[in-house]
Amino acid sequence: DGNVTAGAQKSAACAACHGAEGKSAVPLYPNLAGQNAAYLNHALQAYKKGERSGGQAEVMKAFVAGLGESDMADLSAYYASLKP
Amino acid sequence: DGNVTAGAQKSAACAACHGAEGKSAVPLYPNLAGQNAAYLNHALQAYKKGERSGGQAEVMKAFVAGLGESDMADLSAYYASLKP
Repeated sequence: DGNVTAGAQKSAACAACHGAEGKSAVPLYPNLAGQNAAYLNHALQAYKKGERSGGQAEVMKAFVAGLGESDMADLSAYYASLKP
Repeated sequence: DGNVTAGAQKSAACAACHGAEGKSAVPLYPNLAGQNAAYLNHALQAYKKGERSGGQAEVMKAFVAGLGESDMADLSAYYASLKP
């Protein structure tokens, strides 16, 4: 399982679009705060595997390309821990 | 823009997996309550267009196949209106 503190430390790039506290300022982008960690991890894996296209999928794919399994688990735990 | 009341009336099939109040009982599925309506609509469109695969994407694609533009807008407005 992911580590919340480690996730927070890795979240700077995410915050640009998804907000400092996981609440997106752009309605087209999803809020992440309080989302289920297992789903967040699934979504990151899906972007990495190229299972999503359209919208911002290419942007997400580029971001997750540099993330390993533990990074994705940590980020998922962090955003799930935030108050929605 | 979508109609919240109409969305509520169309949400029975969604509730099976995403919860009666948009909070999923299954961690692998996303909570929808309080999510940005524009993102929810984007995600529904993406499933409909086959832009997502893996996980439950085929299930979602089957569900959205029967939804029109106004249905997706209504459902998005409804889930965005729920307290996260």
